[in-house]
Amino acid sequence: MAEFRLYCFSQSGNAYKAALMLALCGAEWEPVFVDFFHGEGRRPDWRESVNAMGEAPVLVHGARKLSQSGAILIYLSRRFGAFQPQSEDEELEALRWMFFDNHKFSSYFATYRFLHSLASPPGDPAVIAFLKGRAEAAYAIVEKHLGAQPFIAGARPTIADISMCGYVFYPVEEHGFDLERTHPNLWAWMERIRALPGWAAPYELMPGERFLAPR
Amino acid sequence: MAEFRLYCFSQSGNAYKAALMLALCGAEWEPVFVDFFHGEGRRPDWRESVNAMGEAPVLVHGARKLSQSGAILIYLSRRFGAFQPQSEDEELEALRWMFFDNHKFSSYFATYRFLHSLASPPGDPAVIAFLKGRAEAAYAIVEKHLGAQPFIAGARPTIADISMCGYVFYPVEEHGFDLERTHPNLWAWMERIRALPGWAAPYELMPGERFLAPR
Repeated sequence: MAEFRLYCFSQSGNAYKAALMLALCGAEWEPVFVDFFHGEGRRPDWRESVNAMGEAPVLVHGARKLSQSGAILIYLSRRFGAFQPQSEDEELEALRWMFFDNHKFSSYFATYRFLHSLASPPGDPAVIAFLKGRAEAAYAIVEKHLGAQPFIAGARPTIADISMCGYVFYPVEEHGFDLERTHPNLWAWMERIRALPGWAAPYELMPGERFLAPR
Repeated sequence: MAEFRLYCFSQSGNAYKAALMLALCGAEWEPVFVDFFHGEGRRPDWRESVNAMGEAPVLVHGARKLSQSGAILIYLSRRFGAFQPQSEDEELEALRWMFFDNHKFSSYFATYRFLHSLASPPGDPAVIAFLKGRAEAAYAIVEKHLGAQPFIAGARPTIADISMCGYVFYPVEEHGFDLERTHPNLWAWMERIRALPGWAAPYELMPGERFLAPR
């Protein structure tokens, strides 16, 4: 059995954050497929035995079982001494962007994308429009931030970058955010992340089918 | 000038998390009112000089200016040696609930409450119903969790409790979640937090008018 096991599925950008971190750290790890779209995360026995929050990712390492991508990234950064902030100021800067990511950046975009191109039945148009507007506001803040520095917390990549890139590498057909055209600073930051040794795209790292083409 | 200054307004449960922490720690602090409902957080000069994310709370301590309640709570817990997790396992447990709080517990409830009883013009009914459903799902997870232990990360109160109680003390008229009746474990946890020395309610700790009665 591999040293690390990650409960995940390919469409989950939150799971991708953990999978990418494992890949970039050169960890010995294996995925455990979560059949999220057939309700595995809602099953009482799954919640009991894997994660009470009903979500992926979940990282298993020895006797430890961790959920929430932010906590997993902090844990792995310590274990591998990689992508760690190097001072308290840098740590606080990374943390505030990770909280912002969970509150507004990844979260609104992820829920918008889900209702926009995968949910069955499709999401309510008013809800989709609301979530898209919230995601656009968060993306505008990050676009501006990345105009002033190469990585989220400053000059070097940290776990804040790995958290915030969770959803940006999914194909444009899934969400319609044409970042290369509309968010040049964010796109340039994505290119810097893509250049990190060990980088791979979500559908390469995790099991599960690709999204269907949008309706 | 007080040692700590907190940009806040009374209706913000995210700001309340920081204000309550300062109160519970016996800090010397003063509030700086943010006129959020008249767009102060959207003003370019405010974003430039106070917080690029456009949000309260923002904590000023010496030369440091910190945003995001989660980062502020971690910072204050170190400065005061209070409500800190006591082992790495407890820390990771506190962190995962703080990320869950930002992602789903406080966040969906806060946005639901805003559109339900304050936004002008009122929020779209489909959007309100969507957010309410998401908030209810998150509240059910926390209700179950608190049936097994007195505080979020275990036997003692930590910053995870202070994060997660950000919105629960607002009057039921603002949101319609009758927690005493529907969420007994959560209500008992609220009583334990109310009993902490220095506790005060949101409208007592921060400047700004109360919400209007719901429409």
